[in-house]
Formats: sequence, structure tokens, C-alpha cells
Amino acid sequence: MSRAPRSSFPAGRRGVSPSGAARNATGAARSAGGSSRAVTRTLSDDPLGGTVRRTVLPSGLRVLTEAIPAMRSVSFGIWVAVGSRDETGPQAGAAHFLEHLLFKGTKKRSALDISSEIEAVGGETNAFTTKEYTCYYARVLDEDLPLAIDVMCDAVADSVLEPADVETERGVILEEIAMHDDEPGDEVHDLFARAVYGDHPLGRLISGTEETVTPMTRRQIQGFYRRRYTPPQIVVAAAGNLDHAAVVRLVRQALGGTPLDTDPAAPAPHRSATPAVRVQPAATVVEPKETEQAHVILGCPGIDRTDERRFALGVLNNVLGGGMSSRLFQEIRERRGLAYSVYSYASQYADSGLFAVYAGCAPGKVDEVLQLTRAELARVAAEGLTEEEVARGKGMSKGSFVLGLEDTGSRMSRLAKGELLYGDLVPVDELLARVDAVTVDEVNTLAAELLARPMSLAVVGPFKPTDFSA
Amino acid sequence: MSRAPRSSFPAGRRGVSPSGAARNATGAARSAGGSSRAVTRTLSDDPLGGTVRRTVLPSGLRVLTEAIPAMRSVSFGIWVAVGSRDETGPQAGAAHFLEHLLFKGTKKRSALDISSEIEAVGGETNAFTTKEYTCYYARVLDEDLPLAIDVMCDAVADSVLEPADVETERGVILEEIAMHDDEPGDEVHDLFARAVYGDHPLGRLISGTEETVTPMTRRQIQGFYRRRYTPPQIVVAAAGNLDHAAVVRLVRQALGGTPLDTDPAAPAPHRSATPAVRVQPAATVVEPKETEQAHVILGCPGIDRTDERRFALGVLNNVLGGGMSSRLFQEIRERRGLAYSVYSYASQYADSGLFAVYAGCAPGKVDEVLQLTRAELARVAAEGLTEEEVARGKGMSKGSFVLGLEDTGSRMSRLAKGELLYGDLVPVDELLARVDAVTVDEVNTLAAELLARPMSLAVVGPFKPTDFSA
Repeated sequence: MSRAPRSSFPAGRRGVSPSGAARNATGAARSAGGSSRAVTRTLSDDPLGGTVRRTVLPSGLRVLTEAIPAMRSVSFGIWVAVGSRDETGPQAGAAHFLEHLLFKGTKKRSALDISSEIEAVGGETNAFTTKEYTCYYARVLDEDLPLAIDVMCDAVADSVLEPADVETERGVILEEIAMHDDEPGDEVHDLFARAVYGDHPLGRLISGTEETVTPMTRRQIQGFYRRRYTPPQIVVAAAGNLDHAAVVRLVRQALGGTPLDTDPAAPAPHRSATPAVRVQPAATVVEPKETEQAHVILGCPGIDRTDERRFALGVLNNVLGGGMSSRLFQEIRERRGLAYSVYSYASQYADSGLFAVYAGCAPGKVDEVLQLTRAELARVAAEGLTEEEVARGKGMSKGSFVLGLEDTGSRMSRLAKGELLYGDLVPVDELLARVDAVTVDEVNTLAAELLARPMSLAVVGPFKPTDFSA
Repeated sequence: MSRAPRSSFPAGRRGVSPSGAARNATGAARSAGGSSRAVTRTLSDDPLGGTVRRTVLPSGLRVLTEAIPAMRSVSFGIWVAVGSRDETGPQAGAAHFLEHLLFKGTKKRSALDISSEIEAVGGETNAFTTKEYTCYYARVLDEDLPLAIDVMCDAVADSVLEPADVETERGVILEEIAMHDDEPGDEVHDLFARAVYGDHPLGRLISGTEETVTPMTRRQIQGFYRRRYTPPQIVVAAAGNLDHAAVVRLVRQALGGTPLDTDPAAPAPHRSATPAVRVQPAATVVEPKETEQAHVILGCPGIDRTDERRFALGVLNNVLGGGMSSRLFQEIRERRGLAYSVYSYASQYADSGLFAVYAGCAPGKVDEVLQLTRAELARVAAEGLTEEEVARGKGMSKGSFVLGLEDTGSRMSRLAKGELLYGDLVPVDELLARVDAVTVDEVNTLAAELLARPMSLAVVGPFKPTDFSA
């Protein structure tokens, strides 16, 4: 029910499958369309996890599982390749509004049925919407997986979108937007995205705004639901103590008779239907607000999700502002005590990305923090990182990746994102090898190019809009 | 480096060990004092996890481990039975200030050494301070556990507290306090604790305030460190792919020659040295702030950590406001769309507790939300929960407990909290049996007593201090 956090470690690889054929998310689905039989294959068998299997249903819907018998739980997710960037201007917030409504009831279940059936067995369920995809998930004990599949598939595939529920949920979403407006440390990230992407959908709020959510009609949301939630756009993923064939059978059973029970695959609108990204010239945007701290972001366009340099970028980001040993943390927090929170991050989309530094500091210290940050970025652009730093940055990438694979939720997400965003799942050891292969030269070439770009600045705090125009 | 979140599932049991002898955290430590040999025993071997072993060092410091060979990682924590409630008024914030300083350097390591040694191998490290304890932890790949033990023990046992670092870190903490002041949904919880506990240490901010942190001297913090961080007050806990004897050996080695290398156990100040809790009469406190949402908490004193009714309270809390199927979520969010976030929670301390409902809503809807909440509390107090609801509440308690034990971090925390707060570790199956044994009568007797108590109200939002005095 929330908008997703920023992230993350680069995963997946560029559209080349083990068999050498280029493919992508929708391509993979289409390749199975026309057949009336589900097609299953075993993808990998990595030493840290379990066996991964992938089945494409006749409808084009993909099911991926990872069987990890040592676990007691299963995480089960339904991922849809639809996010806020698929909305037109007046639709802004439709993907997120729909995500909320899918928990409100189906022909068979009320909202209370949906939540109480999962919670009665101690399971948890939730959902989130990002700019490029939407995820509905549950985590339950292994013995309750059939229940979770039945409830989640019903909720996502067969929601009735009752007009009264649309009105009630509108109120909830307006409160979510208001809550977000009370969190200046979050708000500044939205302000920064707007500075870089302007009116392009990637520059808009995932939730929409009060202005777009208030007049949104059930008909608009229903249309979005039926056009966008089609089997080829959907990946079902599960990880934990499970049996692949049983999961596939239960999913087919749960979707039988719903609008997602189509055969063969219907053509679906493709991501390329959204307008091409056009990055704005570097700009300064200030949101005046009577806060205790100033929240600032300094950053620039980065690289897209399939850019081969993403592994080098992960290393650069780690060393520059990715941990307590990073240059920015050491300089701004450890040495000078100017901020509690200071870090850099990289976001990646299908065709674009962001690289930025965040800091929260006393309003009177913003100039000093910005000056130190700019100086550090310039120093790294000019002189690069040391060999020792690159080695540490690689250790951070590999360690956090491996440590991040110990729960069923992150393993389930890894399957789904690999399939949805890269059209493939890269084995763990291959991913680690990709990080290992990063050279000091690659990192420093990227740093020289990226960190010398004109930077946009976003500020939320007790300032006037013109305070940073110099 | 943060203040801990509220929680949680009741764990542990009242000071009776498997052998039938009453003991508590310090009692257990003392029982080994005087001996010059470490004493080890195997505590449990639960079906979901690994073998738990416990060693008391001659100094009184306790080491608990859980060996889980299926995991690739180890979580390692140093827990100290010292929190903000152990501070006198002028010391307010000392425990948290100290926690920050222990990452700043030792005789052997700089701040950068501490963070970079762990991060270079992809590990993560952090710390948090609560009202009753402080925790320093690291999570690393199993092969890096010796490194993590060496670094963490050095940092916690042998910090030099450089005067210049005290000044720098003061700035960081003042920024942390300012950041917190910008989060009204967090601030209201502090306001509520103050309404219930007044000037008692449990009513104060864990971080201290600008007024107490600004003048705090190195001498004060150093004194607090040396008086409070003594071996009998410390529990070292680790969970993951590890060998107990090796962990004990590495801990002893790392602590050798540090101020924590004492023998035999020195007497330590006991928790009872802090003033007895005196609960205030129910009151209304309003913090005027120009926010989009009103953040409100309605609640009362609850039960303490060892109260036998804590399992019944867990069930009551689940059904009343603990999930999406709960009465308050259904009534206030699902049916009326008045809030995005609404939930109840129970906090437990050694000798007291809180029970409360939080909601974030439009300022104009506060009266309606409060009226609905009061009506629901009164209804449950008068009529109780149904058998079906109690069954669901028990399922939630058991499921979230079991699902919460799948990562090394939560298993490590469970060992340490059991030892530190209960003086014992309850096997998983016994804990589940305790939940199963809860009856509808027990829940409803507790509800009738608890929910009929006079309620305090805390509000942060665009109001005047007198707006809720009626």
C-alpha cells in the first residue's frame, strides 16, 4: 500500500538469454503465445539458493519459483509491468490508486476476507507501486501457500472496483499524500526527480497529486486495469519451501474464470508507448517549508538499467557515499559533524537513471555542505578513486548482494525483477564475477564523465525560492 | 546510530530457569562470578533453528550463540543493559551520545578503520539505543566473523572518546534531533510517553534534547561509560553459520587487555537504581505544528514485560489494531477512508508498559477519528472479542513470530533479549504453546480492565494547545 523506496544493487543482465537469443520481458512472453501448453524450464541452481524454475502459461503469464527446502516460509508475489510512468497526465496516480483498490474486494471476497484469511494464519500481505512496476505480495508459512495463492490471485485478477470503495479509498490516498507532505526528507527526492525530468511521467509523483486524485473516476481506473493488467505483463514469483509444479497448478486454478484466464497471449501495450525521456537542463528548485533541517539533493542524470557500466557505478557509489566508510560520510559527518544523514544513490529506469547526493543539515550549514559535496565530486571526477577504494567498493557490492539473499522475500523479488526488468535471471556467481571484473579504470572513466555533469539542486527547508539562485 | 523503533511480540518468560531456580539478567551473571573458568551449557535445540549455547565468562560477561549451518551469514551483537532510563536528568541523552562515540575510534583503530574494515568485506554495522538497552551489531559472511568480532569488541570495549570527536559528534546528534523534529508521526510517540510518564526517565527522549546534549561534557560521558559498561551488564550474541567455542575464544581474545577484561565479575549498578515509575493522571498534550496531517495517539499505561497477561495482550492488540483485518483498520480506513495509517501497539518495560492507538488523519477529521476509536475501545471493553477473532489474533502472534525467525539478525536479537530482559531463552515451541493457551476469557478480562482505563491523548498538528481541552 505504499510507494516503493529508492534502491539498489544492479541486477540482471542485458537482454541476452543463456541460449544466446536476445529477449526482453514482453518478448519472452510472446515467444510462448500461440502454444496452448505451459512451457517449463529449469533456469539455474545457484550454490546459495535453490532450484529456479520458470513456466510460461498459454496466456503469456510467467511463473517463476525458487525452491529452498531449508526455509519454513514462502514469499509469493504478483508483479505487473505497469507503474506511474505508464500514465498520461490526467491519469497521474492511477496505477497507485488501482493498487489500493485491488485489496478492496472481489466477486468472492470482501476487503476483510482478503486480509483476514492471510492474517489468521499469521501471514502478512502488502503491495507497492513504483514508476515502472507494481507488486502485490504475501509471506506465509509454507503450509499456507495454497491459501495465499488463492487469495492474492483472486484479489489481483478479479477485483470488482465497487464505486463506493473508490470513494472511500480516494480519502485514504489523499491522507497518504498528506502524510508524505509531512516528511520533508522524502519530499525532496520527488522535487529532485521533477527538476531532472520535468513534466515527463518519470518526473511525477507515483501517488499523483490532490489535483489528479480528487477528480479521478472509477471508469478511468477500470479502463487502466483492464488495458494494463494482461497476462503477458504479469510475472508471478515465489521463493521458499515450495514445489514448482504445485505453484503453477494452483496459480492456473486460482486464475481460472477470471479476466486473466486468456488463451493465447493477447498483445499488450509496450513500455515504449510512454513518451521518450527528455532530461531538463540542470536547475535549482526550492520548496519553502518551516522545517528544523534543510533537506538537499545535488545530482544529475545517471545511466539506465541495462547500461554495462552499472557495476562500475555501484562501486563508485559505494565509495563516494554508500556507507559509513564512504568519502562523503567521512568528510561531512565524521570529520565535521554537519549532518546525521548523508549518502549518495543511483536510481535506474529502463531508459534513464539518476545519480545524486542527499544531506539533511542545519539550514545555516547548507552552503558549507554543498561546497564540500561539490568539492568531493570534483576531486573524484578529476583524480578518480584509489585501487584500495575500488576494492572496498567491490567488497560492499558483493557482500550486500549475498547478504541480501537470505530471506524468501528478497529471493522472490530477485526472480521477478530479473524477469520483468531484464528478461532474464543472472546466476549469483555470474553477478559476483561481473562485480569482480570491474577495473579501477572503468570506475574512474565513469566518474570523470558522470560527476562532471551539470548538477541540479533540490532543497526543502526554511528558504525563499530565490535563496539558491546564485 | 539510531533510536530504536517501537515493538513487539512478547518474548521470554518470567525469571524461572529450566532448572527451576529463579534468576534474572544480573543474577545469572553473578552466579558465575568468583569462578575463573568460563561456564558453558547448551540451552535448546529448537526445530526451526539451530543449537543454542551459552557461556558465562569469568568476568560475568555472557556469550550466547545459535549455530545455523544452513545460513551463509552471521549476525553478531554486543548488547548492554543500559539505556536512557538509566540517566539522571542532566545526563539525558548520555547513553545515546556514548553509542555514537563508540564508533569514533579506539587505541588501535580510527573511525574510518572501524567502518571500512567491515564494509570492505561487504558487511554492515550499526547500533541503536533504547530506553533500557543499547545494541551494537554487525552482519557479515560467515568467513568474516573473526574480523567482525575483533572490530566490534574493540570499538565497544576500548573507545578513546577523543575530546575533538565529542564535539564533532555533538553536531551529528543535534542534527539527528532536528531530523526527528521534522517527523511529526514519530514526534507524537514521544509526546505520548511524556504524557504518561511525565518527568520520569521513561518519559524522556532517548536522544536527550538540545538543552541537555549541548552542555554535556566528555567527562560525564566517560563516567557513564566506565560505570555502566561492565562485563555483567553485557551480553554478546551471535547467530548464523558459526562455532560456539570459536566465538567464545575470539571474544575473549578481542577483549583481552581492554577495560572489559576483568576477573572476577565486578558488582554492577542494577536497574532498580533508577527511580520507580510513577504514572501520571490521564492528560491531553498538544504540540502545535503546521503539518498537513494531524498525528494523534490515544492510550494508557499497559502491562510490564514479565506480566503473564502479555500473551493475551498480544492477541488483543492484533485484533484491535494490529493488522489490516483489525477492527480499527477496518472501521477507520477500510470503511470510512479517514486515515492511511491507523494501528494499535503495546510497549513493555521492566516495570511498566503502554497501550495505545495511533492515527494520522486530516486535521478536520480528528474529532471523528477519536470518537470512532473511543467507541471501538469501549465496545471491546464491554463486549469483548469473539472466539473467531481470538483465534485469528493467536494465528497472527504465532505466524509473525515464526516468520520473524528466518534471518540471522532476528535470531541474534532473540538470544540477546531473552538473556538481557528475561534472564532466559524460551524455546520456540514453548512460546507457541503459551500463545495457544490464551483463552477468550483471558483476552476479554484484560480488555475490560485495560481499555476502560482513563486515556491520555497526544496530538501533533495545526492546533492550539487548548483545542482538545473539552
